[in-house]
Amino acid sequence: MARWAPDTRERLRAAALELFAERGFEATTIPDIVQRAGVTRRTFFRHFGDKREVFFSGDEIPRLAADMLAAAPAGVAPFALAWGGFQALAGERFEPRRAEIAAARRIIAAEPALRERDLQKQADLREVLTAGFRARGVEALRARVVAGLAVDLLQTALERWADDDTGTPLIDHLERVRAEMSAVFDTDLPAGNPRGRMPPPAGVGGRD
Amino acid sequence: MARWAPDTRERLRAAALELFAERGFEATTIPDIVQRAGVTRRTFFRHFGDKREVFFSGDEIPRLAADMLAAAPAGVAPFALAWGGFQALAGERFEPRRAEIAAARRIIAAEPALRERDLQKQADLREVLTAGFRARGVEALRARVVAGLAVDLLQTALERWADDDTGTPLIDHLERVRAEMSAVFDTDLPAGNPRGRMPPPAGVGGRD
Repeated sequence: MARWAPDTRERLRAAALELFAERGFEATTIPDIVQRAGVTRRTFFRHFGDKREVFFSGDEIPRLAADMLAAAPAGVAPFALAWGGFQALAGERFEPRRAEIAAARRIIAAEPALRERDLQKQADLREVLTAGFRARGVEALRARVVAGLAVDLLQTALERWADDDTGTPLIDHLERVRAEMSAVFDTDLPAGNPRGRMPPPAGVGGRD
Repeated sequence: MARWAPDTRERLRAAALELFAERGFEATTIPDIVQRAGVTRRTFFRHFGDKREVFFSGDEIPRLAADMLAAAPAGVAPFALAWGGFQALAGERFEPRRAEIAAARRIIAAEPALRERDLQKQADLREVLTAGFRARGVEALRARVVAGLAVDLLQTALERWADDDTGTPLIDHLERVRAEMSAVFDTDLPAGNPRGRMPPPAGVGGRD
């Protein structure tokens, strides 16, 4: 059997993004995309489950994350593991594709069906990370919390990097978001027992 | 014009949840629900946009959050505001409805279309909080980060509370999740410059 050309997936993605930019997401059909890319419809469906999947890297990121967690040495704290993985992904997988990712994110932002799929992909990654941490013996709540923080950190940094015209690398955005998250817990609540110290805010659940 | 009975929405919700539990979400129709609740189809659509909306409180939570942020005194840190709001919501809105919310969450977990809608509702709340913080003069990245942390904190605590048969109040789950989030940043990364200290993890983006 012939091997698929290694760049077919990227060619399909580039053709689709061009057409989405020219005509809009809804008005672009799969026949349009395969014609522009010079491949068959069947080839499209070898690479993508539907038109929305063109915007996402399939299961690549969750698979890499699962492999990384399974392969990492014992005793590394879960957030440190996620952080190391994001730094590697940033440099190797995201940075070289900045223009394409930024264009894709603009289309996702404008299309409710794509935003939903994007949210589902984030939830999938969160579940993979939670399960991977659990398999390493991390306690359930810590596993869930670290996975949630990690996915939101990555997502926020990606959004800012894609919107940033100054060329600041993703790795610097990741570091800024991490520092900001950390600062929230350092400074935003009174020390000691925060339950006793917070006045109930006006307008929420009050008896008035 | 006649006022709607104030409990119609809750009666519809209770009828729908009973039917979903008996027959499953897909097999339950809107005519089934309105018949069980003893109201008209038209009344259903006054309260809910579609069958999935039965599981969610519409725009109630984002609206309360927006009102709370607009009404709060100046100078309260954004995370402290969100935290105070969640504590009030927990006691007044969630705790009295624990059995119903737990049942609803089990159905949501089993139904991809409901999980998607749930993720969209979380994203909506995140956007409302981000915009509310921005309107209070909070810097853009801090606003986004606090909103993300707050929504994930609430979501994680709700999941654990709904799954917890010991009767531990939601407010205690909120506090545990908050403490766990805070601990991640205290202990999970080496102090100082974390970029220089982390070895690249095996299997992600490496050159080997």
